Amino acid sequence: MKRRVLYFCDHGRDWGWLDHFQPRLPGVEFVREEDLGSDTSDIEVAIVWNPPLSVLQKVPTLKLVHSLGAGVDAIVRLMDGLPDQVQVARLVDPVMAQRMSLYGIATVVHYHRGLDRFDAQQGRQEWKPAFRLDAADYRVGVMGMGYLGTHVAQALGGVGYHVSGWSRSGRGVERVQMFAGEDGLGPFLSELHCLICLLPLTPGTRGILNGELFGRLPKDAVLINVARGEHLVEEDLLASLDSGHLAGATLDVFRHEPLPKGHPFWSHPKVRVTPHISSLSNVPTAVEQIAQNLERFWAGETVQNTVDRVHGY
Amino acid sequence: MKRRVLYFCDHGRDWGWLDHFQPRLPGVEFVREEDLGSDTSDIEVAIVWNPPLSVLQKVPTLKLVHSLGAGVDAIVRLMDGLPDQVQVARLVDPVMAQRMSLYGIATVVHYHRGLDRFDAQQGRQEWKPAFRLDAADYRVGVMGMGYLGTHVAQALGGVGYHVSGWSRSGRGVERVQMFAGEDGLGPFLSELHCLICLLPLTPGTRGILNGELFGRLPKDAVLINVARGEHLVEEDLLASLDSGHLAGATLDVFRHEPLPKGHPFWSHPKVRVTPHISSLSNVPTAVEQIAQNLERFWAGETVQNTVDRVHGY
Repeated sequence: MKRRVLYFCDHGRDWGWLDHFQPRLPGVEFVREEDLGSDTSDIEVAIVWNPPLSVLQKVPTLKLVHSLGAGVDAIVRLMDGLPDQVQVARLVDPVMAQRMSLYGIATVVHYHRGLDRFDAQQGRQEWKPAFRLDAADYRVGVMGMGYLGTHVAQALGGVGYHVSGWSRSGRGVERVQMFAGEDGLGPFLSELHCLICLLPLTPGTRGILNGELFGRLPKDAVLINVARGEHLVEEDLLASLDSGHLAGATLDVFRHEPLPKGHPFWSHPKVRVTPHISSLSNVPTAVEQIAQNLERFWAGETVQNTVDRVHGY
Repeated sequence: MKRRVLYFCDHGRDWGWLDHFQPRLPGVEFVREEDLGSDTSDIEVAIVWNPPLSVLQKVPTLKLVHSLGAGVDAIVRLMDGLPDQVQVARLVDPVMAQRMSLYGIATVVHYHRGLDRFDAQQGRQEWKPAFRLDAADYRVGVMGMGYLGTHVAQALGGVGYHVSGWSRSGRGVERVQMFAGEDGLGPFLSELHCLICLLPLTPGTRGILNGELFGRLPKDAVLINVARGEHLVEEDLLASLDSGHLAGATLDVFRHEPLPKGHPFWSHPKVRVTPHISSLSNVPTAVEQIAQNLERFWAGETVQNTVDRVHGY
């Protein structure tokens, strides 16, 4: 009899995962919620994206919930309703890191080189070349120096930007000036031209991109949020843009996705909206990473990239 | 008595050159056209941007004309009117190469990751995430593998793109698949997602970006022109965009600069216009490069980065 694994993927994010999982793990039967049957006691593993708690609770014997994406906040927030033995693992995929890095570089260059202004000038048929800082003098700060944050920071440094990083621990990364914790936040923010949020979403980081934080950024700084919509207090961003303190924002993530029609971000002249594409999972490489992790679990080895319940990431 | 050097800079490009040249070369008097006086026989060197022939002809004793920019076409086209002994030297500045590389990376990512579509979707308040190729499968071709072209190609390879190059000689560059001459042009073009023009402007390359060339690109390819406006047959580009063959173009250079109000490029939904800023000269480092070259000349040493009269670059 085949080993069964629960599979749940939020609509809109199912890019043929099982077409890749099935040949990679031929001894496994992937079961959707509606096909679980009455006896689920043989199931120990779930692979999921944005699952409702009710789905996971149908399998009280779960021991490992593996995310199909890098962010695990949608699973972590359910953990109080899950048995203690459940481990949560995130996807760590170098292709996602490269995708996020390219998005980060392109967006930083967009602001650094004034492409936002040139786009607006094109609409007015205005020709106004302008001098900009050298890349080495353009200071980019990355909040959240986990797997993706570290890669983005190093990629930005690799193309010549002055990069600093902020995290809870302040653990060092080559060529990146690090700041740590609450005491380091002010000094970190105070000299940035561009702030990139790549934090995990936890109770401690929810709403961290707020008016007080924006006030600690220099005038004319710009914000890039590629983490989670809940990091951002949307009203505070609009106020900081409209007051002229912040010069622009590129947002890839939102409190409500898809971003609802009529939301002020869509039409704000200083806001660029992308539809959560900064680092889409890459199915073939992601499947390989996850399959290896499931094989570790079944072999009784240590599962990698698991979430610390205390910190929530 | 001070050594005199003729200085001419087209309006709009004089970013304080002499404020940097003067302290670097205190023994030199930089003379504008109107201050030349009747006897110019002591002058052997000119530093210029877009000079009219009439200015250079006022100094028949010229031996070296040094460009304040990387492109020398505006000087080379005057050479028939200048004495045989005149050497022309271009500016070769690593800061310019870095600036061009960042512009190139940002523009390639813009198309590769569909940011052009997402910008348009934002205008319609449309949320349509889409899958894109991996960078390693996105094929970028650089036409013109001189100093800047080589740097841009290597920078694009460095962030993960599949890069090929085309030049007269096909001289190799690490990690870049090279194509040479007329025979290599078709194979070079036939598989590109994105073509970047960084050619020198010569009689052989004027109008090279024309309908026939666009027809050899795959459907939905995009064009980036950061070389000279005269490389492009504007009507042919508009036809290729309007027929749906090409998907987009980013143009930084134009036949007439500033691009005239009312020009169709300004308002074309598939054309992005930037005001010749892809690689502005960086005054401090450029002055240092040029000053060293002038010192070589005065010391009787070989001047670097000179133009081959036969090839025109």
